Amino acid sequence: MTDLRGMGERAASVKLTLQSLSAEDKNSALLLAAKRLIERSEEILAANGRDMENARANGMSQGLQDRLKLSIQRIQAMAEGLEQIAALPDYISECMEEFERPNGLKIRKIRVPLGVIGIIYEARPNVTADAFGLCFKTGNAVILKGGSDALHSNAAIVKVLREAVLEQGIPGDVLQLIEDTDRAVTVEFMKLKEYVDVLIPRGSAGLIRSVVENSMIPVIETGTGNCHVYVDKDADLDMAVQIVFNAKTQRIGVCNACESLVVHSAVRESFLPKLKSALEEKCVELRGDEKVREILPDCTPVTEEDYGTEYLDYILSLKTVDSLEEAIAHINRYNTKHSDCIVTENAEAAEKFLNQVDAACVYWNASTRFTDGFEFGFGAEIGISTQKLHARGPMGLRELTSYKYIVCGNGQVRG
Amino acid sequence: MTDLRGMGERAASVKLTLQSLSAEDKNSALLLAAKRLIERSEEILAANGRDMENARANGMSQGLQDRLKLSIQRIQAMAEGLEQIAALPDYISECMEEFERPNGLKIRKIRVPLGVIGIIYEARPNVTADAFGLCFKTGNAVILKGGSDALHSNAAIVKVLREAVLEQGIPGDVLQLIEDTDRAVTVEFMKLKEYVDVLIPRGSAGLIRSVVENSMIPVIETGTGNCHVYVDKDADLDMAVQIVFNAKTQRIGVCNACESLVVHSAVRESFLPKLKSALEEKCVELRGDEKVREILPDCTPVTEEDYGTEYLDYILSLKTVDSLEEAIAHINRYNTKHSDCIVTENAEAAEKFLNQVDAACVYWNASTRFTDGFEFGFGAEIGISTQKLHARGPMGLRELTSYKYIVCGNGQVRG
Repeated sequence: MTDLRGMGERAASVKLTLQSLSAEDKNSALLLAAKRLIERSEEILAANGRDMENARANGMSQGLQDRLKLSIQRIQAMAEGLEQIAALPDYISECMEEFERPNGLKIRKIRVPLGVIGIIYEARPNVTADAFGLCFKTGNAVILKGGSDALHSNAAIVKVLREAVLEQGIPGDVLQLIEDTDRAVTVEFMKLKEYVDVLIPRGSAGLIRSVVENSMIPVIETGTGNCHVYVDKDADLDMAVQIVFNAKTQRIGVCNACESLVVHSAVRESFLPKLKSALEEKCVELRGDEKVREILPDCTPVTEEDYGTEYLDYILSLKTVDSLEEAIAHINRYNTKHSDCIVTENAEAAEKFLNQVDAACVYWNASTRFTDGFEFGFGAEIGISTQKLHARGPMGLRELTSYKYIVCGNGQVRG
Repeated sequence: MTDLRGMGERAASVKLTLQSLSAEDKNSALLLAAKRLIERSEEILAANGRDMENARANGMSQGLQDRLKLSIQRIQAMAEGLEQIAALPDYISECMEEFERPNGLKIRKIRVPLGVIGIIYEARPNVTADAFGLCFKTGNAVILKGGSDALHSNAAIVKVLREAVLEQGIPGDVLQLIEDTDRAVTVEFMKLKEYVDVLIPRGSAGLIRSVVENSMIPVIETGTGNCHVYVDKDADLDMAVQIVFNAKTQRIGVCNACESLVVHSAVRESFLPKLKSALEEKCVELRGDEKVREILPDCTPVTEEDYGTEYLDYILSLKTVDSLEEAIAHINRYNTKHSDCIVTENAEAAEKFLNQVDAACVYWNASTRFTDGFEFGFGAEIGISTQKLHARGPMGLRELTSYKYIVCGNGQVRG
């Protein structure tokens, strides 16, 4: 079995070096890593070929095979990702606050790395380079546990990245990969509290639940998005159709896609037929309550379970309400605290919705698809947090940092 | 068995009300609660009397009895605590950031309550009023699980507080107490992830460990402090004696007390005898390595275990080092990431220490005893976080909040 404590110790041993690297040191290493990824793409593709062969032999679904498969273009995209991260600001050592106490103590709150970040993810090799880039830029050591189906690909990418940082005189242990595919190792990893400061799971709802339930290390929960669009009685209905169409169909397999529509009964007659004809283009299945089915008779009857489901598919649940308050209560009951939207021309209704809906991102007249680190202008994203502790919503570089208080005195003691 | 899900639902049901309360509403309720605590102190003291009777019958130690016992003065102190919290700023709804994207989306990052906070603590009834005040001020509902030895006291305090908020037209369920003393209930409580947003354990290292290991709810770990003072070769030795004396003896049972002294071998001859004679006044037992014992022959030999121990007692471990780097490595190995101090007149050495020691608070020429929400000027404190996620060091009101992104558009969809 993998010596996880040994890996933890090696990660801990590079923390001081990592923290003392200048922004230039880190950016040079990121740019070199990007270059080496492209130069050595043949080696990476060969490793990926072995994973793909196993995947086909094991009957992996087409969708998963598509996520696993690398190409020159995808390796280029990974390299560009690292270049973009190099171009972002360096937040480490930033003074976040500074104050002086009446006794003369000078206190500064300084941004520091979290320390050692563990990332548990599925068979998407691009996450390997991405996670390295974000953690390295923020001065964190990272220990990766990727899906076993991507083991050869991940090992090849990690080899290239480690050798690139080494070339820059930085210890390779800033990035480590757990290559053991035994599930017991993953469970053990989640208990490595002494060495790992935070664990970020990336992947399916099942993976995330398992990490939350088993980890002794603090977890940042990412991902699940049962996102709603509420079409108010005062909505611009054409805008509402465009927003629902975009949020539902622009990309179906993502956490910020719309899964459920809530519509005010006053506009159901005028709105629902418009919406139906727009969504027909993408063959979206509608599942509605009685009042929806009065207008759209061939709509599938909706169940309680539908309202709690993140379809990640061309399906939309529909609920009618008789008031804004009912809409807010429905959404707060079924949402996953990710992203929810109101479409209305009524500023008062919008304000109430934006204040009272409990979600990381609440929208007024815009698609929920904008919940994304790049769309928010963070320049990078490690995931979308659906918890309230530490970080909420799109997580960029700053969300991978902590802080410390530096207190300077001249002999003060407490009386 | 207590209906924990029912309690969770009641806490969730008051979230919107809590969040919409104005600062004035909250402050009036806090002031009324303070007033009622004093007016009804007889009732609270009677309940506490029952707890004290049981405690004596069960042979509770004097130290724990002292923490459990209430008096008119202690109830007054609780009331004053609530009044102080009322006087602090209200951070809820504060705009933390505001930016506009090239596509015209306007994004605001707004401070919001965490939601529902669970607090698990031991037999200190004053924590009951304190936790209520801090959580209520920040718009959070709170579910308390106090030590079973304090059950009558806690129930009486909670009754007074709930009735006070009710008088102000605010639902009593903003504050709930789990009165079931079955341990299984506590374990079940730690799994109430659907309703509770964060769990804060307050108490002994054992209690905190148990919560960290069993909770599925995100935890903020507080408390354990194996704090060091390092006396550098360039230290002002009189200042060093004063700082160590204060950090070790001013209050021994607290997490920011000094437990271990690291001394540069170049100053051990001049420093250690001075220190010893100062600490003799408080009968502090010294446990030192060989080089310490060359100077202080009657000092107890130190063990590895000593270096990892938070004594909370009149005991100090001592370690000699030959360099600043060795001091930093020793401290990073044994500290609990709480508070560590360097005493030196050498600014370069101080800077290296402050940057490289991994702790929530790092001190230059001041006692570690200042790691405290009040001493930092936060006006309140729910605990000292020793983790890096969400909050680090003294946690005041802001550390009991989260944020949400409010995104306003005019029909934007993602391309």
